[in-house]
Amino acid sequence: MSARIYNFSAGPATLPIEVLKQAGKDIVDFQQMGMSLIEMSHRSKEFIAIAEETENNLQYLLDIPESYKVLFLQGGASSQFFMIPMNLLGGQKKATYLNTGTWATKAIKEARNFGDIEVPFSGEKINFNRVPQDMEYEISSDSHYLYFVSNNTIYGTQFGKFPEREKMLVCDMSSDILSRPIDINKFGLIFAGAQKNLGPAGVTIVIIREDLLGQAPENTPTMLNYKTHADKNSMLNTPPCFAIYTVGEVLKWAIKQGGVKVLQERNIEKANLLYSAIDTTDYYRGHAEKNSRSLMNISFNLPTAELEAHFVEEASLIGLSGLKGHRSIGGCRASIYNAFPKKGVVSLVQFMEKFERENPVIK
Amino acid sequence: MSARIYNFSAGPATLPIEVLKQAGKDIVDFQQMGMSLIEMSHRSKEFIAIAEETENNLQYLLDIPESYKVLFLQGGASSQFFMIPMNLLGGQKKATYLNTGTWATKAIKEARNFGDIEVPFSGEKINFNRVPQDMEYEISSDSHYLYFVSNNTIYGTQFGKFPEREKMLVCDMSSDILSRPIDINKFGLIFAGAQKNLGPAGVTIVIIREDLLGQAPENTPTMLNYKTHADKNSMLNTPPCFAIYTVGEVLKWAIKQGGVKVLQERNIEKANLLYSAIDTTDYYRGHAEKNSRSLMNISFNLPTAELEAHFVEEASLIGLSGLKGHRSIGGCRASIYNAFPKKGVVSLVQFMEKFERENPVIK
Repeated sequence: MSARIYNFSAGPATLPIEVLKQAGKDIVDFQQMGMSLIEMSHRSKEFIAIAEETENNLQYLLDIPESYKVLFLQGGASSQFFMIPMNLLGGQKKATYLNTGTWATKAIKEARNFGDIEVPFSGEKINFNRVPQDMEYEISSDSHYLYFVSNNTIYGTQFGKFPEREKMLVCDMSSDILSRPIDINKFGLIFAGAQKNLGPAGVTIVIIREDLLGQAPENTPTMLNYKTHADKNSMLNTPPCFAIYTVGEVLKWAIKQGGVKVLQERNIEKANLLYSAIDTTDYYRGHAEKNSRSLMNISFNLPTAELEAHFVEEASLIGLSGLKGHRSIGGCRASIYNAFPKKGVVSLVQFMEKFERENPVIK
Repeated sequence: MSARIYNFSAGPATLPIEVLKQAGKDIVDFQQMGMSLIEMSHRSKEFIAIAEETENNLQYLLDIPESYKVLFLQGGASSQFFMIPMNLLGGQKKATYLNTGTWATKAIKEARNFGDIEVPFSGEKINFNRVPQDMEYEISSDSHYLYFVSNNTIYGTQFGKFPEREKMLVCDMSSDILSRPIDINKFGLIFAGAQKNLGPAGVTIVIIREDLLGQAPENTPTMLNYKTHADKNSMLNTPPCFAIYTVGEVLKWAIKQGGVKVLQERNIEKANLLYSAIDTTDYYRGHAEKNSRSLMNISFNLPTAELEAHFVEEASLIGLSGLKGHRSIGGCRASIYNAFPKKGVVSLVQFMEKFERENPVIK
């Protein structure tokens, strides 16, 4: 095995090496059963045990109340953009969306096919460099829910504190689920694509309050109705077995680390290291306003686009990979999810100092 | 590694051991890049190369003309049940469905939300023990397509010859794609969940004639529109990377075997071995009528349900696993897809002879 690089990719993203090693074994021979985990029937008692343990561990880690169902779905977080309004709005009701970036924009577009969508805050004109505070926007009294994206991967912004409004919250937590404790009771629905903090691409977690099941119109396709998936414990059809298994291994790893609070402490420590490096010089400029800074994705710029390209290239030569920013805003981005090691952040900070010394701006 | 069992499961199903071993390595360290294949960005040149090679190899193996697009989608074959009429019928047109079993029944139910669906043949009253011949059913002239399931896993029936009618064919080939050569030109759309002949659960292949793209109504959710996936080469959102990679490895294996014709010859040989064993005694009774017999799934009964349960249990003790029939028809079922070895079929036939001798029916 070659030396592990530090992979700053935004997702699919770095995973714990012990999870990868276990998956590598189980994919050849699962628990000495003489077959691979991807050859097992999803109706076998072994796979059902994997799915149940995964669900139980998520409930434990996030302290999910019994009045919520956990679903393992396909189609990516992007499919939730239409499934949420399709299931919850019944083609008529109003909902409120906060536009804090690319993924919120896409969710708003899809929701407009299914209901009356109001957008009382949009960061479009400020290049999505911050998330709103509660007092900044109104919510109509007849709005069914308040939708927001808790962490915006591209712009490196995050709701440090969730909205505290008299309204059911619906949240895209794709890029920061499991990175901090949350009070699930404030939420009607939380969803997250797995490929950042939870595991590989190919499965999306939906945590839904049980009273919201069964509100979809009658002619909703079976596969798009939360209730049918809930009734069948996400085994309505063949689930993405490998992705569910791997999420399960990541959750076991998270429990071994000490749970979500420990992960949060580490995330704060890692992000602070990087933000300190940015703040001690004018050479690097963070994209996000300070009070909206993300602990997961740090987007920053160098003095010129040429220096940014040079920075990304030089970094990759010493095993600091995936630092190129998203094509929509350019610059650089370091994604440091739960499984990203502190050592990698330290290496990046050292590299940043060295790069600045060796590549001064000529004025 | 423990000894490989013979896994007769209907899907997820047995895969080539060389594919599993390669996946086991790549999941820890992909091509000595210092990261796992499931940690790689789907926008990296390495993953794009995997996806392109997979698509090219499928085109090569199935001789897919240039006027067709290959899509890698999520949601299982079950999601195609509604996506097909949603995209192709525009809420008004008529389509013709042949009801040859459980999966066709489900597809018909979902299609009725989107168009006028006629079902001129249903095997319901004969317990789906055969597929229809061309002269048995009428098709309305204004029907947009003829939908059928090429192989019915539960009942062990298969269209040995595809319908030859003056109508565009749409086919669920989930359980026999890549098992024999096909003339794609007769089809408007072919789809298949991967977890039988193609790889692991978690990705669905759609082969669609390009002129059928862009026929979906305007308010179709982005993720449910074939055209948006085609325009983005199935990279509209993060694809199920691991499943696509593994399909790619299975396709490379299939090419090494000599291609689809060689696989077909082996499939005929394997199925004949098993059907001969069934036909030489009254002890075992095949479910399917002889002219509808499947080369992929052989469903059969023993004299009593007690003997069937005993048979399944005894077989599993000697490493012949997954022989229990689907709960909807009971009995036994041996699924022998492309990757299932002939040796396993020989072992099953030997076991069947032994079991009959040791468990005679007392009259």
